[in-house]
Amino acid sequence: MGELVNRAKLPRVLGELLAGIIVGPSLLGLVSGNSELEALALLGMVFFMFSAGLEVELDKFIHALKGGLLVAVCGVVVPFTLGYLVGTAFGLDFVQCFCLGTCLSITAIGLSIRVLMDLGVLTTRPGMMVVDAAVIDDIIGLALLVVALSLAEAGTIDAQAVLWIGVSVVAFVFSCIIVSRALQYVYRAFSKCKSLREGHALLSTVIITMLVFGLLAKFFGLHEVLGVFIGGMLLRSVIREDVRHEILDFTFAFFALLFFAYVGVMVDLRVLATSLDLAAAVIGAAIAGKVIGGFVGAIASGLSAKESLMIGVAMNARAAVELSIATILYTMGVFGQELFSAVVLMAAATSLLTPILLRLVVKYVAPSLTPLRAPGKK
Amino acid sequence: MGELVNRAKLPRVLGELLAGIIVGPSLLGLVSGNSELEALALLGMVFFMFSAGLEVELDKFIHALKGGLLVAVCGVVVPFTLGYLVGTAFGLDFVQCFCLGTCLSITAIGLSIRVLMDLGVLTTRPGMMVVDAAVIDDIIGLALLVVALSLAEAGTIDAQAVLWIGVSVVAFVFSCIIVSRALQYVYRAFSKCKSLREGHALLSTVIITMLVFGLLAKFFGLHEVLGVFIGGMLLRSVIREDVRHEILDFTFAFFALLFFAYVGVMVDLRVLATSLDLAAAVIGAAIAGKVIGGFVGAIASGLSAKESLMIGVAMNARAAVELSIATILYTMGVFGQELFSAVVLMAAATSLLTPILLRLVVKYVAPSLTPLRAPGKK
Repeated sequence: MGELVNRAKLPRVLGELLAGIIVGPSLLGLVSGNSELEALALLGMVFFMFSAGLEVELDKFIHALKGGLLVAVCGVVVPFTLGYLVGTAFGLDFVQCFCLGTCLSITAIGLSIRVLMDLGVLTTRPGMMVVDAAVIDDIIGLALLVVALSLAEAGTIDAQAVLWIGVSVVAFVFSCIIVSRALQYVYRAFSKCKSLREGHALLSTVIITMLVFGLLAKFFGLHEVLGVFIGGMLLRSVIREDVRHEILDFTFAFFALLFFAYVGVMVDLRVLATSLDLAAAVIGAAIAGKVIGGFVGAIASGLSAKESLMIGVAMNARAAVELSIATILYTMGVFGQELFSAVVLMAAATSLLTPILLRLVVKYVAPSLTPLRAPGKK
Repeated sequence: MGELVNRAKLPRVLGELLAGIIVGPSLLGLVSGNSELEALALLGMVFFMFSAGLEVELDKFIHALKGGLLVAVCGVVVPFTLGYLVGTAFGLDFVQCFCLGTCLSITAIGLSIRVLMDLGVLTTRPGMMVVDAAVIDDIIGLALLVVALSLAEAGTIDAQAVLWIGVSVVAFVFSCIIVSRALQYVYRAFSKCKSLREGHALLSTVIITMLVFGLLAKFFGLHEVLGVFIGGMLLRSVIREDVRHEILDFTFAFFALLFFAYVGVMVDLRVLATSLDLAAAVIGAAIAGKVIGGFVGAIASGLSAKESLMIGVAMNARAAVELSIATILYTMGVFGQELFSAVVLMAAATSLLTPILLRLVVKYVAPSLTPLRAPGKK
């Protein structure tokens, strides 16, 4: 299904979700959620978030700071606020509203970058600004996510809780850096020994380290998935290219499918029939929030209205990371079946719309764009 | 643990089993069997058996037939009979006796080959005969396994059941060949398309095909694990070298560990305390059966007594495949906790003893050995 959807130039994850929805209780009813499948899906999610971390280039972050900051901040604040307001309007409590806002705030940029690349406008000024903003977006989103998941666990918030989260995060990041340094030494020792260098010992070590990052996060009161994601970011520069490639390959060929198909199985479209207004409001807030936020941020950075529209549309995609968060919140009982299904539908709708809209907007904007030699580009 | 044990020149699987035994109910009691872990272990077993199939070289089988047939047949008949008799002595029923015999009959040759290679005697006449016999052993073992698992499911045996198993196997193998041929065409089509050739689509396709083989086996009334094993054998020559390498790497770095550690968790050493006589009898029958069977077969093939002893000892290892069979039989309820633990201990004991004994015997035999230019060797 993923491959079929990909042929239509839409993201694979849509096909994987669809496969789950088809076999799940929404349509055929062949498969329903159970603890064995959940164990397999969790395994898939851990590998997926680790791979997502492995694809973040930390060194690009510093370079991106000046260019994309305004776009990124506006692109988070507006959808977060809209999401929070939608939650309030539907009578959700503080924690649910905060978590819903977070789910609407994190851009899945991979898709947009591929479309911009296909259209040959990635190296223009707005193109590069989208990339820069997306990198900062990841970091802000990560911070929001830490707070949201800690909130979800604590159920409420006060000054002491915030302080405690702050201390945990600092302690966790610090211990992560120690672990990734330690791994560097292990690797150097391995590379001196032929049997370890050429066997699967390297791959095993990386997988064990991934699990250690998850346990570290749990130890500091954070969610395991955050641990493996941050672990992936830190390990990117440490692990050997072929081992990284092998992990990414297996993740996208196998592990990630277990997870996304299971998300599809857990979505119950029948529930949506009775709560269509919530789903529509969430989708509307998500699209309006990102497009308006990105547009305002780009205008404030001095771009033309046409270019700003392109940036707003490019920031609109949300996909896999949102699905992970929504699944965790659903498992924790913060999101009910209705809210969970609405967020999954929002992710599907935005990642379906973004490539289509972006192609239209770029065609309309393209004549006024001039390619840019990005100073930081080699 | 696997790596540590491997440093001591013992097979990795021992370390993996030991890790499971340590965290399991036998010692620390941190982990006990549950359906979620079982799902992960099953995933591990499927990948492991597929990889085991991928490592069988079908084309060597024909060449091996003349050299190793007598050794292979004696090396199966003697331990099978002894295992059956031990079962009878302990009051087990017909199906349990047959399955116990099967568990004692399949040689895990990989280990012995590595020891023979390290000692430089693999290309001598008895060395090559061990390899030939092991290939045939695999096929005989497979046939025994088919019957044992069908028996375990049916609970009894009659002429009609045997006929039915025969028809199922033929139909299954026939449909497997069709699937692997079809995959060859899919692969050829893929190799013409850049995005499919270079992405993870090939890996996904192989994994899907593996699962199809499992379903095919189930459809014909055989066990899924047999399906993926035979599927692996058929796919060896079809799939691309780098994809095969990737699957083997991930299996031995991750999937297989899930399975073998879980086998360790399921072994309850406390149960053995009350049934030590059964475990001792099974281990004794296993060792005596293979050493005597291999020795007699080699003498009958015209080798000297010393060389024959070396062959008998080399055939003695049993490991991963036995553990898979024992686990399946345990899950089906054919093996009780005591018999299951005895078989796991037997596998651990023989794979621990074989490299040690083989090194001693080869030192004693070595002076009389002359290297052989194997006619089939390039």
